[in-house]
Amino acid sequence: MNSFEITANLVDVLQQEIYPAKIYIADGRIRQITRTTDDCEGFIMPGFIDAHVHVESSMLVPSEFARLAVVHGTVATINDPHEIANVVGVPGVEYMLENGKQVPFKFNFGAPSCVPATAFETAGATIDAAAVASLLLRNDIKYLTEMMNFPGVLHKDPEVMAKIAAAKSMNKPVDGHAPGLRGEDARHYIQAGISTDHECFTIEEAREKLSYGMHILIREGSAAKNFEALIPLLPDYYEKIMFCSDDKHPDNLEEGHINLLVKRALAKGNELFKVLRAACVNPVLHYQLDNGLLREDDAADFILVDNLKDFNILGTWINGIKVAENGRTLIKSVDIAPINNFDCEPKNVVDFFIPSTRESVTVPVIGAIEGELITEKLSAVLHPVNGNIQSDTRQDVLKLAVVNRYTNAPIAMAFIKGFGLKEGAIASSVAHDSHNIIAVGADDQSLCTAINAVIAAKGGISVVSKSGMDVLALPVAGLMSNLDGYTISAKYSAMDRAAKGIGSTLASPYMTLSFMALLVIPHLKLSDKGLFDGDTFTFVDQDLN
Amino acid sequence: MNSFEITANLVDVLQQEIYPAKIYIADGRIRQITRTTDDCEGFIMPGFIDAHVHVESSMLVPSEFARLAVVHGTVATINDPHEIANVVGVPGVEYMLENGKQVPFKFNFGAPSCVPATAFETAGATIDAAAVASLLLRNDIKYLTEMMNFPGVLHKDPEVMAKIAAAKSMNKPVDGHAPGLRGEDARHYIQAGISTDHECFTIEEAREKLSYGMHILIREGSAAKNFEALIPLLPDYYEKIMFCSDDKHPDNLEEGHINLLVKRALAKGNELFKVLRAACVNPVLHYQLDNGLLREDDAADFILVDNLKDFNILGTWINGIKVAENGRTLIKSVDIAPINNFDCEPKNVVDFFIPSTRESVTVPVIGAIEGELITEKLSAVLHPVNGNIQSDTRQDVLKLAVVNRYTNAPIAMAFIKGFGLKEGAIASSVAHDSHNIIAVGADDQSLCTAINAVIAAKGGISVVSKSGMDVLALPVAGLMSNLDGYTISAKYSAMDRAAKGIGSTLASPYMTLSFMALLVIPHLKLSDKGLFDGDTFTFVDQDLN
Repeated sequence: MNSFEITANLVDVLQQEIYPAKIYIADGRIRQITRTTDDCEGFIMPGFIDAHVHVESSMLVPSEFARLAVVHGTVATINDPHEIANVVGVPGVEYMLENGKQVPFKFNFGAPSCVPATAFETAGATIDAAAVASLLLRNDIKYLTEMMNFPGVLHKDPEVMAKIAAAKSMNKPVDGHAPGLRGEDARHYIQAGISTDHECFTIEEAREKLSYGMHILIREGSAAKNFEALIPLLPDYYEKIMFCSDDKHPDNLEEGHINLLVKRALAKGNELFKVLRAACVNPVLHYQLDNGLLREDDAADFILVDNLKDFNILGTWINGIKVAENGRTLIKSVDIAPINNFDCEPKNVVDFFIPSTRESVTVPVIGAIEGELITEKLSAVLHPVNGNIQSDTRQDVLKLAVVNRYTNAPIAMAFIKGFGLKEGAIASSVAHDSHNIIAVGADDQSLCTAINAVIAAKGGISVVSKSGMDVLALPVAGLMSNLDGYTISAKYSAMDRAAKGIGSTLASPYMTLSFMALLVIPHLKLSDKGLFDGDTFTFVDQDLN
Repeated sequence: MNSFEITANLVDVLQQEIYPAKIYIADGRIRQITRTTDDCEGFIMPGFIDAHVHVESSMLVPSEFARLAVVHGTVATINDPHEIANVVGVPGVEYMLENGKQVPFKFNFGAPSCVPATAFETAGATIDAAAVASLLLRNDIKYLTEMMNFPGVLHKDPEVMAKIAAAKSMNKPVDGHAPGLRGEDARHYIQAGISTDHECFTIEEAREKLSYGMHILIREGSAAKNFEALIPLLPDYYEKIMFCSDDKHPDNLEEGHINLLVKRALAKGNELFKVLRAACVNPVLHYQLDNGLLREDDAADFILVDNLKDFNILGTWINGIKVAENGRTLIKSVDIAPINNFDCEPKNVVDFFIPSTRESVTVPVIGAIEGELITEKLSAVLHPVNGNIQSDTRQDVLKLAVVNRYTNAPIAMAFIKGFGLKEGAIASSVAHDSHNIIAVGADDQSLCTAINAVIAAKGGISVVSKSGMDVLALPVAGLMSNLDGYTISAKYSAMDRAAKGIGSTLASPYMTLSFMALLVIPHLKLSDKGLFDGDTFTFVDQDLN
């Protein structure tokens, strides 16, 4: 079979040593490493690993995600298929597994722990403790994904405890998700057997969780960015730190991945071996991956970089297969037959009317904040026209709609401030965690058109302006495209520009929109079942008539 | 490559289900499992795993151990190369690794934690914390072996803690060895990160250690036998129980292995799936082995048995290779180039004299006990002949000698009761843990001849009788043969019979002999440096002159 030799400076992260070496590879494994006195160019080192990512956020299926990621020296990811699981359930997880196996890239999927995320919204599926246990018996399910239900852990909810017990029974790790959890609660949560957290936003919180034995993932994605806050942990805790993106939009993935965090960490003066331990080694050890670390008999997973400062990726190899070269992916696209769960009919403009017989009405308003998942509780005075309360672009109080995508149901309506649209509308079937259709619009007709475009595509993101309508179809579960990743990256950028063209002042309007239905993050959100107060965990009664 | 299909009743231990299935295997992995309605004969199930064994005790190198073990359905072992490490150090560990890789069998070696075992004897090598850490970086070193130095753990000895930290840093398990440790001491020992124990001899001790989170190995070997005491744990703790042999003599290995424990556990009425979970699954999960468990994509490691009561092994497969069939091994012997550390010259009979000018002298006597590693502290009155205190067969008080095998040094002499020799002598270079030469004899000349036979062979076991001398050479580190395992099994049986022929009343004279220099087990033992009191951890001053 495939056998070859590479001569380069070998960066041995485990032994903390760099030396010129001839590396002989056969049948996908490193067979021999010989020290040489030859002058070598370039540095060969283990590839980078994203220790927590929802591939779905890239709007690419795993096989396309891999094509873009390997260019940046990424060889493996720890994946939580939480998004597709909320839409399609276990078959969605299996879909991701099977698609991922079609390309030379090391995806490592977990069993989703929290599907659905809450009982206050309509999700497409449920994965109960029995289904979680069954997934964990598989050899290709490596861990239990982020246990967001920390109250359930602290109160020993039987269903939650059964999921954790199933992971322990298979000696597989349990990922955490406990933003802001401190003190005794944090200690109990960790003692329940939860060994990672990627949600720390302050260094004090991370230090405390480390002291209780947790591994901390420094997250820097398209949405949450914690690198600057947490990177000072690295010198003292480099054996317990990993890097992750959590969510990466396609344009952002095309720009770079874990390689960018490595460069930034080094630019801050961190030691090379500590940075690489976090970026390349710790996920392999913690999640017991079959990734190679450049030892004899290891899988031949490695990258070649020009030098240890610029980290330009000259080549990426996985199982001895060259998958990227000088910024160009060598992975071929594979056929992608979509899977979906999308069954609602087009809407009429009258469905978006908010009737009121009053002259003026005070409405509750969701206050969207740039770069945050949290919202504010605001209110505004609006003046109904012809018995319908309308969006008011002067006040930037716009109609927000959430449409059940799984069945025909009444539309949930509310008002939102912060998007800044002056005309048209944007809509998306990416709406955490249940992924119903969410849209914001300057007028009812645009709102309806934008939503119907998403419905017609059986999922996607759309934009409506005076000059027309555009849609990026996401036929795979209404979350991912079935097309080439680079095409989607370009298209997503165009959609983003179009949303800004109709007035949005947000850095990433589709991303912000996708979190406006995420009930578990306060203060005010819109479920498909109505306006929801995240502080009291109850629906808000909107009496506008 | 190799591809084939087997149709049989599949015993799915993880799913706890038995069903007729067609299993398609290619390139060493299970590619597809299809349920069938055909009538099937035989049961296909995961193979057995010995969760803790010193291969050296079989007097066979790993490649020969494998040949005998696969016949009994064993597919993997967790190995502690402690014995060869005490003789040869790290190169000994590497020797075992390389030899083991030459046959289709899943050896899983650890880094020895306690070499040398004590400072009161002459071992052949030292493996310090730095060497342990270096071993643990290897991908073929799976764990840190039994941490016998529990006082060192409890008192946080820096060298001990560094070894444990090295294992934790690589997320590899640490095996325990803490016979009789209870209460707070046991809790602290376990909290240090030590996750197994195979030394429990009472069920209460095992229950307590389980309650602190430990995994318990039920041991039944040629030496220690804890099966009857501990098997009642299985129903309640089957996810935390494994089976192991610890030490298996060659004749004993030829008779059976973990398969015998499975049959015995079932005969006691235990549930099949619980027994198989302990015998086949738990070691895979705890030590993160690459062993297959009969799932799609798993390595094709399995056995075929006639029925689930007799458990006759019709065939054993490892990585899709058939390695045993109907009691016959299909593994070919490989060339074995011995490694050794043996450098002492032949002795003279006068070297074994114990001078005394007295008429009668009271000597301390080691009291050997059938089937125990513990000895008694006894004494006897002896009458020197020509100024030399001699063995007294009437009282069964015989001379015991320990000869430094690593260099020429004075011989350590003492007296022992319990062997029952009426003539001749037996000697062995298997003498835990430093593996110097140990011998017991009815007269000085026989003692000298037996020891010189071992020296001439550069290691082995010998027997001297009136009718002659016989030796089983163990040229690999003085512990293992380089010959065919079945030949050695037969030869060992013959040696055992010969030792009994000169009067030994012990069930296994060579085994008992091999523990008479094991200083860490009280009460009275003989090191190459002198008579040793295991209660006070000091040498005994023998003033016999």
